[in-house]
Amino acid sequence: MSRVTIKTLAQQLGLSIATVSKALKDSYEISAVTKKKVLDLAADLNYTPNPYASSLRKQSSKTIAVILPEVADNFFSLAINGIQEVASSRNYHVLIYLSHEKTAIEKEVVKHCMSGRVDGVLISVSNETCDSTHFSMLEAGKIPLVFFDRDFEGYAAPKVVTNDYECGRLAARHLIQRGCIRPLLLSSSTALSICNKRAAGFTDFLKEKKLPSDDAVRLIKGNDSRSIMRQLKRILQSTPSPDGIVATVERLAIHAYSVCKTEKILIPRDLKIIAFSTLETAPLLSPSLTTITQPAFEIGKNAAELLVNLIEKNRGAVPRDYMMTLASGLIKREATL
Amino acid sequence: MSRVTIKTLAQQLGLSIATVSKALKDSYEISAVTKKKVLDLAADLNYTPNPYASSLRKQSSKTIAVILPEVADNFFSLAINGIQEVASSRNYHVLIYLSHEKTAIEKEVVKHCMSGRVDGVLISVSNETCDSTHFSMLEAGKIPLVFFDRDFEGYAAPKVVTNDYECGRLAARHLIQRGCIRPLLLSSSTALSICNKRAAGFTDFLKEKKLPSDDAVRLIKGNDSRSIMRQLKRILQSTPSPDGIVATVERLAIHAYSVCKTEKILIPRDLKIIAFSTLETAPLLSPSLTTITQPAFEIGKNAAELLVNLIEKNRGAVPRDYMMTLASGLIKREATL
Repeated sequence: MSRVTIKTLAQQLGLSIATVSKALKDSYEISAVTKKKVLDLAADLNYTPNPYASSLRKQSSKTIAVILPEVADNFFSLAINGIQEVASSRNYHVLIYLSHEKTAIEKEVVKHCMSGRVDGVLISVSNETCDSTHFSMLEAGKIPLVFFDRDFEGYAAPKVVTNDYECGRLAARHLIQRGCIRPLLLSSSTALSICNKRAAGFTDFLKEKKLPSDDAVRLIKGNDSRSIMRQLKRILQSTPSPDGIVATVERLAIHAYSVCKTEKILIPRDLKIIAFSTLETAPLLSPSLTTITQPAFEIGKNAAELLVNLIEKNRGAVPRDYMMTLASGLIKREATL
Repeated sequence: MSRVTIKTLAQQLGLSIATVSKALKDSYEISAVTKKKVLDLAADLNYTPNPYASSLRKQSSKTIAVILPEVADNFFSLAINGIQEVASSRNYHVLIYLSHEKTAIEKEVVKHCMSGRVDGVLISVSNETCDSTHFSMLEAGKIPLVFFDRDFEGYAAPKVVTNDYECGRLAARHLIQRGCIRPLLLSSSTALSICNKRAAGFTDFLKEKKLPSDDAVRLIKGNDSRSIMRQLKRILQSTPSPDGIVATVERLAIHAYSVCKTEKILIPRDLKIIAFSTLETAPLLSPSLTTITQPAFEIGKNAAELLVNLIEKNRGAVPRDYMMTLASGLIKREATL
């Protein structure tokens, strides 16, 4: 079976290629009878338009790219569902690219997106990313860009984020209310704005309560599980040891649970734990995990809506520095009892 | 900034378009000095080849598509990592498409892949899929296909799977050894070969042990969490109630834990649970979850290697009905104590 093209359809129907092409585009120049003939045969022969050829003509692929660090974090799975819901309803395909938390891969993927393959890009940046030249390049190539969750601070493009600073404060307040006097916040990056905002909210609250805040934010480096566990073990066994921790990413909380299990640190008696997380098993863990839960599905959905509006030139409604902030909520569970 | 094309490079260097094009392709016709000039300027101006134009010429996009049901299941996150490792090392881009367990979306995506956008497809089929016309179409369009984990039984294409029948037997044996006399297997599909093989192994073992097997496999329908929980609740509260369950997909085990928690069914005293799962939090659940753990990363890696070999025409090494079977392992934890 060779590819069915417009030419195939034209030959079988005894029509000109121009007529078939117009019929497929529902042109007013073509009669309803002819259109039906063309569409019926196209369906029977399973005709698919060639996106390369048609992209070269009309410069549109009806495709949006989603660039994100990983899919193992449940936040991103849920956000993808929100993105896909909007894309389906507005007839866009969704391509997912993973940066694996590496700026080099992120830049490579952005370049791949630039070469006419996609109409717009949704991105949640890697935890290494500290320059924005690839975003400028993308926009210079007339491909609109919307950040979701992990934005790049200082770069003006539409963003859909959560109230990270407030949530940092909320986490500190909850730990202090539960009796913690040496709480720490574990960050996964000094470049990521979400980590920095959560850390700022956390330390500001400690300062207001006259609690030591100078060394209250600790950076956990890298993405290798064993290395993360070693770093966590050192922090949890230091003297004086922390009595509460806030994990800014889901993975850090899971690893902290593992370390507590092997090192016989009892949660919540010896250590209280809060995680920024949408982990489905949070209520089922031993003990159940207190979370700051982001509206991941809604974040994806709103970001995709913004992007499609930008692509379809309804830009009037979307200022360059537009930022939509959705609120996350604290769900108290056994880990902070 | 408008797009930098071969023409831009040619104009700035005072060379012909043909010369620049050949230089970029490292043609023997062009001198080393000219090649260096062209490549340097291309790098400085951030020139990217247009994949549409070049795909029309050489019919290759150096891109593979991965079609899978969802990313919330940890198996798929890990498999993607395996796929990406091979793709990076062999210079392929990876596009991820989700079918959300719907055949209609899966067919739509396959069609999208057919239109010249990708060089090959890796697929794990949706739990609804019960015909293979879209796979035939894809291959008729000369796009190679490799199934991983969830294959389509009876369709001859290379496959990378696990020993599902043996694992079904293993699960039954473990539950019986731990004292269960009314174990059930919960399946998520009657169409998915992996569910059917696990179910066959499970019931065959019960028969050999002269235990009732006629009603030992139960189908849990749909993907909506609340509906799944209602179905599970009915099964777990029926008389006589099961004393052990095997969840053929991760999601069913998580929901079973939730139902047990709300309905005060004690695991493992009242009910023992085994799940086919690579869930990272399995050892941290209350109680920790016994799993049959698939080599997800390895499955993805091997499937991607097969596909790239097919794309690059090393087909000699890959017969049409090639099936690679990797072994999964039982990890005993508190849920079956």
